[in-house]
Amino acid sequence: MTDRIRLPDITKRRMVQLLQLLKAWPNEKITSIEISQLTGWKDSLIRHDFWLLGTELKGVSNGYQKDDLYKTISSLLGIEPLQTFQNQKESTDAYVNNFTGSDSTERLLKNICIVGLGRLGASLLDQDLIDSSFFQIKAGFDSNVYRVEILRSTFPLYPANEMDWVIKREKIEYAILTVQDSSAQQMCNRLVKAGIKGIVNMTNVVLTVPEGVKIENLSIVNALKLVI
Amino acid sequence: MTDRIRLPDITKRRMVQLLQLLKAWPNEKITSIEISQLTGWKDSLIRHDFWLLGTELKGVSNGYQKDDLYKTISSLLGIEPLQTFQNQKESTDAYVNNFTGSDSTERLLKNICIVGLGRLGASLLDQDLIDSSFFQIKAGFDSNVYRVEILRSTFPLYPANEMDWVIKREKIEYAILTVQDSSAQQMCNRLVKAGIKGIVNMTNVVLTVPEGVKIENLSIVNALKLVI
Repeated sequence: MTDRIRLPDITKRRMVQLLQLLKAWPNEKITSIEISQLTGWKDSLIRHDFWLLGTELKGVSNGYQKDDLYKTISSLLGIEPLQTFQNQKESTDAYVNNFTGSDSTERLLKNICIVGLGRLGASLLDQDLIDSSFFQIKAGFDSNVYRVEILRSTFPLYPANEMDWVIKREKIEYAILTVQDSSAQQMCNRLVKAGIKGIVNMTNVVLTVPEGVKIENLSIVNALKLVI
Repeated sequence: MTDRIRLPDITKRRMVQLLQLLKAWPNEKITSIEISQLTGWKDSLIRHDFWLLGTELKGVSNGYQKDDLYKTISSLLGIEPLQTFQNQKESTDAYVNNFTGSDSTERLLKNICIVGLGRLGASLLDQDLIDSSFFQIKAGFDSNVYRVEILRSTFPLYPANEMDWVIKREKIEYAILTVQDSSAQQMCNRLVKAGIKGIVNMTNVVLTVPEGVKIENLSIVNALKLVI
């Protein structure tokens, strides 16, 4: 983590997309021409991105080992996959779901929580939606105590007023925010105070956070406005 | 629509954010300094964006009328709000929910559909989540006929194989894609074939679409990777 490269935001976005494409790629090798065809990015752009990522990815004329490429990009982005493709010849599903929960692997996973368990938040109470080779949902929070009690999930749910100590105890670093717009900034403030480092913001509110806290805006309404 | 300005993508993103902020702004006027404080954008950047948006927004020294600003930005982005703030002094909720469905207003609304009614898709079966001053959900689709029959919603649900004619009949232009990753590209192709012009992609797949079709990627997993 300490010697991580500072990548331009746009390169990071492309690399996260590329990881998804590599996951679905059927062969062991992939050439930069094939990456270009898959992504629509120019060959020169891909080579520039890889150059930014560092020496480990440079100069393989007959293509990249998919497995190596996946591992290298992941770790440069600061996300460590639990397993590589070569270790799981069986199926891609096994790759995603085969989470053992042992101590040695747990340390590689990023702990996340879901804040707001309305319809949208409740639909995320399923580790299947979240790539469990990278992330582990540790807690869900809602200010409605009744909702916390009746909803079922594979991880514990808490009233929102227990957020602070649960986040600290469970070493949760990232949150998915799915509360109502009216309480979005307030909940965001509490998350930041509890030490959260990144928030996936699914509300329609533009959140204000101190420097160092990352936000990714995933408002469905705003996305609709952008595809018009 | 025909004389719409071609705005840089990044300006468009900022303006969509600004619309959200204006909605929550309590006063009738807003100055560019206040916009700067709210958004964190430099004053010069805001003025540049407004300059790109055209003459209608330039040169008001003592601030903008919130209502005018909202209307102008919306219509330049190609989205027409049903009502303006001044017409609905009662409450913001009324503004969002007070959709009458009469012919004259319907023509202003953009028709959308939801494709894939699993946990995430089913959680969107609620017009409340979608800003009904701009959008109207006209249909939901799922390849599982049973799911289509048991789910309840305020708009009709159809089996996925009826997608083509329903989209044409209902004049649906935009889609929210919430199917499983494994069928994302296939469903996307069918949407494009039916004439869909923009897709909010909530799957983890990088979709390939012909030029002219817009995609906004809202993958939760990819967003998590970007806040790390």
